[in-house]
Amino acid sequence: MDTNDAVQATLPDDPQALAELASQSMYDKDTASQALGIKLTSVSPGEAVMTMTVRADMLNGHKTCHGGFLFSLADSAFAFACNSRNQVTVASGCSIDFLAPAFEDDVLTATATEYSLAGRTGIYDVHITNQTGKRVAVFRGRSYRIKGLVTAGHD
Amino acid sequence: MDTNDAVQATLPDDPQALAELASQSMYDKDTASQALGIKLTSVSPGEAVMTMTVRADMLNGHKTCHGGFLFSLADSAFAFACNSRNQVTVASGCSIDFLAPAFEDDVLTATATEYSLAGRTGIYDVHITNQTGKRVAVFRGRSYRIKGLVTAGHD
Amino acid sequence: MDTNDAVQATLPDDPQALAELASQSMYDKDTASQALGIKLTSVSPGEAVMTMTVRADMLNGHKTCHGGFLFSLADSAFAFACNSRNQVTVASGCSIDFLAPAFEDDVLTATATEYSLAGRTGIYDVHITNQTGKRVAVFRGRSYRIKGLVTAGHD
Amino acid sequence: MDTNDAVQATLPDDPQALAELASQSMYDKDTASQALGIKLTSVSPGEAVMTMTVRADMLNGHKTCHGGFLFSLADSAFAFACNSRNQVTVASGCSIDFLAPAFEDDVLTATATEYSLAGRTGIYDVHITNQTGKRVAVFRGRSYRIKGLVTAGHD
Repeated sequence: MDTNDAVQATLPDDPQALAELASQSMYDKDTASQALGIKLTSVSPGEAVMTMTVRADMLNGHKTCHGGFLFSLADSAFAFACNSRNQVTVASGCSIDFLAPAFEDDVLTATATEYSLAGRTGIYDVHITNQTGKRVAVFRGRSYRIKGLVTAGHD
Repeated sequence: MDTNDAVQATLPDDPQALAELASQSMYDKDTASQALGIKLTSVSPGEAVMTMTVRADMLNGHKTCHGGFLFSLADSAFAFACNSRNQVTVASGCSIDFLAPAFEDDVLTATATEYSLAGRTGIYDVHITNQTGKRVAVFRGRSYRIKGLVTAGHD
Repeated sequence: MDTNDAVQATLPDDPQALAELASQSMYDKDTASQALGIKLTSVSPGEAVMTMTVRADMLNGHKTCHGGFLFSLADSAFAFACNSRNQVTVASGCSIDFLAPAFEDDVLTATATEYSLAGRTGIYDVHITNQTGKRVAVFRGRSYRIKGLVTAGHD
Repeated sequence: MDTNDAVQATLPDDPQALAELASQSMYDKDTASQALGIKLTSVSPGEAVMTMTVRADMLNGHKTCHGGFLFSLADSAFAFACNSRNQVTVASGCSIDFLAPAFEDDVLTATATEYSLAGRTGIYDVHITNQTGKRVAVFRGRSYRIKGLVTAGHD
């Protein structure tokens, strides 16, 4: 049995179990999401839901949440969705439209869904809402799969 | 002399001096940019240059700079460029394309330039390079001017 | 009774009837959509479905449908969706991602839905599929409402 | 000498000559650009300039040039720029921002420049101006190189 077989042997066959394992491994190494207080609510193949509370140090000069943190939340949800099949996948580009401002202490939820996956590239939509369900931002990410596994099943 | 005249009286006529005054006022209130270690290198009417050093807490699960921080740097440069005429201006949408990864300790420079300004809306391009001049990301922001002055000249 | 009252009197109160009336008026004047063979399948407030058959003169140097025609189809569906409330509304910007090529004689369907409408600005998503249901392109449009009515009810 | 060597033998070494040869070959097959009256003004490695006159059949219901034709012009310039090294390259996604309307008989010029080219993917900016030099639209295209040559040198 070679190394690759050994890796395969320790990874779950079930896509949902694999998505959860890959996400846990990824989150443990994702210093940025942790530092921003971003939490993973749920993950499934091609989908992820994450939350973030707007902190005082996330406010810009207009006293609303700096667009970079809204983007970061969306980008994290996108990353967890597109790596959920345990294939290392990176962002090639993203766009975001801001619909309403977010304020200090707002609890934001980002829901990422896979719209398309063909060959190495995918398209993901992420919607951010606040605690009242108000739409705050809409994001579209383009992903590109590179070599490697998110987790080999034993880290 | 009414209040408005008083405000006008304390603001510089020179566009460059006004850009510097507005930026200083904005930066002082921009907790987010400060917390990210983003510094304003230069500003002029419609333009801004900002820098950021990639810290360990900005790395994602792939050990490269989380896209959200690249976006934040670009978004800050965009914000300072589009508020440089002292008219409160917000982002309506942005797109970013990632060209090369950034790593811990990289020193990134974002240069924002105004491509178009007509009525209330503007288009700004931001280029991010690293300390070797390598292109890391390219960003385009759409701005929307709302009511109010960035600084009344005495805060 | 002034002119404005007269106009109001001839326009339907029912949003669906108004959407149909506005669309008919708009389509009659839309030389471009007509010349491209774009047809309006259905319209309702904030939504529109349009179809287009890929012709030989729509092929690029790679013998697939030129991206400009995919964009045109999406852009038309977007325009009919965002003008469906009879308020003149224009595009401020759009993005499109190409998922699969379209070939000569393909029958493409573009479905536009309103994601957000706040103040003068809106966000619309348009999905293009071919006759087999395959996803060909995904488009996002940003709209801006200007002055005027699409139809005064008697043209 | 195998077929591949034969092909290489008939293609010019000079990048500028190769860009011109590839563009000519591509334009001859580009029914769409021809039908739109789009003309190639100049091409060089990574760059292309194309023009188009706005015709009556390009007007939308607001009597301005349908966004799809502005997009088509930009998309053609982008395509010629990114195929100028004779490697078959397609668009993966594009965004466009509309700055000012174009009217019937306006002569539009699209200038495409390569911002980045790394591995198989590139980023191109296209600016559209009218006959007075007014900025009409700004476009960003993402390219993806696939297999094949634009011209084998003898078609």
